[in-house]
Amino acid sequence: MTQDEKYIQRTFELARRGVGKVNPNPLVGAVIVKNDRVIGEGFHEYFGGSHAEVNAVSDAAEPVLGATLYVNLEPCSHHGKTPPCAQMIAEKGFSRVVIAMRDPNPLVAGKGVEILKNAGIDVAEGVLKDDALDLNRVFVKYITTKQPYVVMKSAMTLDGKIATRVGDSRWVTGEAARRLVHELRNEYTAIMVGVNTVIADDPHLDTRLEREARNPIRIIADSSARIPMDAFVVNHPEKAKTIIAHTKKASPEKLKILREGKTETIETNAFEGKVDLQELMSELGAQGIDGILLEGGGALNFSALKQGIVDEVFMFVAPKMVGGEHAKTPVSGKGVDVMDQAFSIKDMKTMKVGEDLMIRGKVVY
Amino acid sequence: MTQDEKYIQRTFELARRGVGKVNPNPLVGAVIVKNDRVIGEGFHEYFGGSHAEVNAVSDAAEPVLGATLYVNLEPCSHHGKTPPCAQMIAEKGFSRVVIAMRDPNPLVAGKGVEILKNAGIDVAEGVLKDDALDLNRVFVKYITTKQPYVVMKSAMTLDGKIATRVGDSRWVTGEAARRLVHELRNEYTAIMVGVNTVIADDPHLDTRLEREARNPIRIIADSSARIPMDAFVVNHPEKAKTIIAHTKKASPEKLKILREGKTETIETNAFEGKVDLQELMSELGAQGIDGILLEGGGALNFSALKQGIVDEVFMFVAPKMVGGEHAKTPVSGKGVDVMDQAFSIKDMKTMKVGEDLMIRGKVVY
Repeated sequence: MTQDEKYIQRTFELARRGVGKVNPNPLVGAVIVKNDRVIGEGFHEYFGGSHAEVNAVSDAAEPVLGATLYVNLEPCSHHGKTPPCAQMIAEKGFSRVVIAMRDPNPLVAGKGVEILKNAGIDVAEGVLKDDALDLNRVFVKYITTKQPYVVMKSAMTLDGKIATRVGDSRWVTGEAARRLVHELRNEYTAIMVGVNTVIADDPHLDTRLEREARNPIRIIADSSARIPMDAFVVNHPEKAKTIIAHTKKASPEKLKILREGKTETIETNAFEGKVDLQELMSELGAQGIDGILLEGGGALNFSALKQGIVDEVFMFVAPKMVGGEHAKTPVSGKGVDVMDQAFSIKDMKTMKVGEDLMIRGKVVY
Repeated sequence: MTQDEKYIQRTFELARRGVGKVNPNPLVGAVIVKNDRVIGEGFHEYFGGSHAEVNAVSDAAEPVLGATLYVNLEPCSHHGKTPPCAQMIAEKGFSRVVIAMRDPNPLVAGKGVEILKNAGIDVAEGVLKDDALDLNRVFVKYITTKQPYVVMKSAMTLDGKIATRVGDSRWVTGEAARRLVHELRNEYTAIMVGVNTVIADDPHLDTRLEREARNPIRIIADSSARIPMDAFVVNHPEKAKTIIAHTKKASPEKLKILREGKTETIETNAFEGKVDLQELMSELGAQGIDGILLEGGGALNFSALKQGIVDEVFMFVAPKMVGGEHAKTPVSGKGVDVMDQAFSIKDMKTMKVGEDLMIRGKVVY
């Protein structure tokens, strides 16, 4: 690992401290190095807060003139909630700037770099770029498509079951994996399940961690608005917003009652009789929702794959087998007919989480 | 890694050259080291052939007097097909012997070491013992229980399916994984499937590798002897022996015809109306079958787990998802009722095989 890579790696660590707090902004960290010594660090701490570069400069214990700035994302060139960072960097007299990736927004990409170069600053780009893209994959998708990044999360036994034949699913995975799921709920702006999950389990869909954390916005795919009025997610708006996604099949009276109880509703056209998920994603994106953790049952998961909204899969695999011809699996629905029509996963990676395994990979359509 | 570990590691490599050739004997490799130089190497090459230690001594280009012998299994102390190695080692004047594990047979374990120590040889034991036990796990089980070591091998998509809803399974995994399965068929003495697999696919159940390899003995679990008379495995005894395992339900006439056609038959009592797999394993063990690759469909796999005959699971996971409420999964049957009754897997390990993943682990009953 080169020195540049080492410091960019550090910007990733700093950037991650903004997880769950900066959405839909990117995760950004910055490190200031002078004579091989770190003299300042900062990160984007919360939505609307100052940028990582500004925080790093404020943190610097000595003048930054002639120093090198490391940042995982190209400094901004536009007046947003804060003045443009590229200009500030030039004014402060940095001699070198190392960035991992350009701003993914094609309309602004390169403009920050241009400002820096025009000011005579030596700019190095693309250091650990793939890791930088991965760190900000939610932001990259959202800023370029205005649709949320969707992660399908499921947990199955080593023989592919999410529950036993009689529906027992407590627990498939161990404690460490279940804790990680709550970290994910803090990380993603929203969580989505199907109404059958609400009817069967009446889940809280909140984030339970020892530290204070964000509860995700709860999205229920419920074409006919069948959700029980005594469902937890309908009666606890103080936890987080709940959105019922439905079609014309839903009763206007039921929808009215839901809305009066602070539950929001979104109507979409029907796709095979159910909620059109592409349309729903566009609407959620317009509402500022940049990322969704899809904890669907098998039917919703299959619809999501089929309608092309899933970006990535997080599959926990528990070291146990339960059998059962009729036991449920992570993705059900109709299914594809032949193997050649399978949804492909690329860059499959594995990670041990306690006694369980987590397999992740991106969906290729 | 110490010098001792390095040379023991080398004995493992040599031992593995006997894979598919020495069963039901153990895999054994030996290395002779003098003044930090390897002067001889050998391994147990085929069943009935001379032992690794003898081959290493024959291979030595200079006198072994005062040398160190490394061997992954305790040298034998009994007159079998060859004279006892421990005695030979003592007579040759080795000054030190390093072994990875003792003979697992409780009746002989330690006697080889005793002979060596009585001859004044410095003996070190237990170097990389866990790896040695893993290398010879088939032998260890077989020699201590007289029952074959059973590996359940299956291949599923990342959403737990072994085929699409219409039964298409060509292919779940990629080429590298399919090649590895043929390596396993060479490695294990026998292969077992259920009769439904024979009826559906008429498989060859042979070993297809570029080099010459061994075809496994074919065991078909077929309680009523429903196997079609034109099945490939019934009509190609030149490839390998085929054994039909059945219960009293099978027609005596059908069994007679099968036997006349060189197919062997084994009758067991019924276990829930099917072949009693524990009884079958005892019978197959008595016939010298030390290891079985179980490539069952879901029903046979569940019976095998339930009857406690599965030692290890090799699950290939392909980077694709197919969905399907009615698509088949690796283990079906009735299934357990609650998660607490799940069959546990320990020491789950993963390995990338081409684009696929292989998860392996031992079954804990």
